[in-house]
Amino acid sequence: MTKSNVLLIGTGGVGTIVAYGIDYVGKANLSVVVRRDYSKVIESGWDLNSCDYGEIKGWKPQNIYPNVEAAKQDGSSNIYDYVIVTTKNLPDITKIEELIEPVVTPKKTTIVLIQNGFDIGRPFIKKYPQNVVISGVSHIGSHNHHGVITQTQNDKTLISYFENPNLSKEHQEAVTKDFISIYKNDKNTCTYFPDAKWYRYRKLVYNASLNTVAALTGVDTGRLELSGGLEAISIPAMKEVISIAKADGVELPGDVINLVVHSDDGDWFEPSMRVDVKKGNPIELEVILGNLLVVADELKVSAPTLKILYELLKVVQFKLKEGQGLISLPAKRPINDKVYS
Amino acid sequence: MTKSNVLLIGTGGVGTIVAYGIDYVGKANLSVVVRRDYSKVIESGWDLNSCDYGEIKGWKPQNIYPNVEAAKQDGSSNIYDYVIVTTKNLPDITKIEELIEPVVTPKKTTIVLIQNGFDIGRPFIKKYPQNVVISGVSHIGSHNHHGVITQTQNDKTLISYFENPNLSKEHQEAVTKDFISIYKNDKNTCTYFPDAKWYRYRKLVYNASLNTVAALTGVDTGRLELSGGLEAISIPAMKEVISIAKADGVELPGDVINLVVHSDDGDWFEPSMRVDVKKGNPIELEVILGNLLVVADELKVSAPTLKILYELLKVVQFKLKEGQGLISLPAKRPINDKVYS
Repeated sequence: MTKSNVLLIGTGGVGTIVAYGIDYVGKANLSVVVRRDYSKVIESGWDLNSCDYGEIKGWKPQNIYPNVEAAKQDGSSNIYDYVIVTTKNLPDITKIEELIEPVVTPKKTTIVLIQNGFDIGRPFIKKYPQNVVISGVSHIGSHNHHGVITQTQNDKTLISYFENPNLSKEHQEAVTKDFISIYKNDKNTCTYFPDAKWYRYRKLVYNASLNTVAALTGVDTGRLELSGGLEAISIPAMKEVISIAKADGVELPGDVINLVVHSDDGDWFEPSMRVDVKKGNPIELEVILGNLLVVADELKVSAPTLKILYELLKVVQFKLKEGQGLISLPAKRPINDKVYS
Repeated sequence: MTKSNVLLIGTGGVGTIVAYGIDYVGKANLSVVVRRDYSKVIESGWDLNSCDYGEIKGWKPQNIYPNVEAAKQDGSSNIYDYVIVTTKNLPDITKIEELIEPVVTPKKTTIVLIQNGFDIGRPFIKKYPQNVVISGVSHIGSHNHHGVITQTQNDKTLISYFENPNLSKEHQEAVTKDFISIYKNDKNTCTYFPDAKWYRYRKLVYNASLNTVAALTGVDTGRLELSGGLEAISIPAMKEVISIAKADGVELPGDVINLVVHSDDGDWFEPSMRVDVKKGNPIELEVILGNLLVVADELKVSAPTLKILYELLKVVQFKLKEGQGLISLPAKRPINDKVYS
């Protein structure tokens, strides 16, 4: 059996467990791109404390590269069957469809996006119109602390594909199932879930409404409920998501609002975007609200609550980027000579 | 000449300079309510470093009380001609019209509100329908640091009255001018400005749009402009204020948006509400947006941007109140058994 040639980019808590899972199956020649922890990993590999795979010391995949360019330049057998992206999804900072260009062979390489966000396949299908683009939605608890991976929740991933109108459904489905065959094992829960679009809309009901408002106001979902923000802002935002989905041909369950509202019952839960703001990390705003509002505009669905949340969070994102050194401003505020009316 | 009986409540940076200005004129028997600094002030008075009045050591007014009840209980000559309120304006925490009940004599006592906010006379006119309610808009730079007052900008106050339909305009104007006569002196700039309503709408164009958005997103007005929030959120909010004003019979200048946008030119300026959030202090949300939205509803003017800013800032206010110990929550989030749809 020929092994698949696989490159994984993004070795955080999620990505490293995906990589290990693929290595555990053994059907792939596995390469990874490791940025921050490269020198540690090249020397001594990863230590994993994994609820799925146990305690592992010094694990290394076949090839370890410090960046995408290096993954391309290494030898001649570098046509990748799969390029898996498991980075945080921040297209306003890094356009991943451009980043991966050196390692994507047109028509040949399947791109696998195990990332948050809505309609995230679009820029990849646009740039690589003859390639299959796979959607992975991961439910896992796993963190990378300086090259030590601690996984506390089972790797449960729903796999499907972002519909590419240039390719047959049969082909896309076959490729998706082939990908599952190199990743699914007796420890993880990797499932073929046919409707990526439905599922990503379903996740947005929470992420576009509770995650965003919690990030903006600085509270957990419990305080959001008790302060009145849930009913005044988040539920109207959920209804807008449901309307956009409907116009896009996706019917969400009739009780979805109630399910989402009660999903953190009993916990003062801080959603991911709120945690990012607290830590000073850029937020996944574009792939949660930005992409959704593009679709809303295309379908001419009004979404006034989501629109203002997006604009407000863009200001927050500006501040977060400045905090990360991605924007720098002069000591004296520049004079703006525009006349406003 | 009989001296006026004056009680001032709220001896922060603004209030103490107002009190000193009245004492300096010498036409009033001046009492003050001092809460936080009572024991310091009763012992050694205030020290003032004032750009208007110079360096003053150990200043004391005639009477110093630790609270409003004590100001009432002291002797028989306690019918106040004027009760001046110079506290921060937080009706969601303290209803001042109730707080001052012991020291307000119906028909007799004039209430002077030298405070931020819009339509702030309404609860006072409702509760004291036969009393004059004066509006003071203060432009001053003055801070109280543990009973030491540092005034860096001239006390410039515009005085008028909140129209009380139960009293004649002539009477209200005469009383307002009488108040000015006990406060205006050769050091301060205390001016009769006939249209309180117009002026407070004019201030709202800034406060409802730049102050609020800066508070919510955590930036100064310069970063708000550069990040796009000015044009996407604050200017639409300004237009809503202008529409509400118009429906309320107030015509703001045609170039008001441009004036407001450029009012902080050259400075990375953090407006007051943003500074409050940063310091963990409750924000003057109800008197800036809450009261405005009541009027918008009454006049049936749509204000979607202001409405969502208000609802989002209510969540922030909840968190600020919790931080101040005004709200306390159990360790475990209570289960909410409501069904949402």
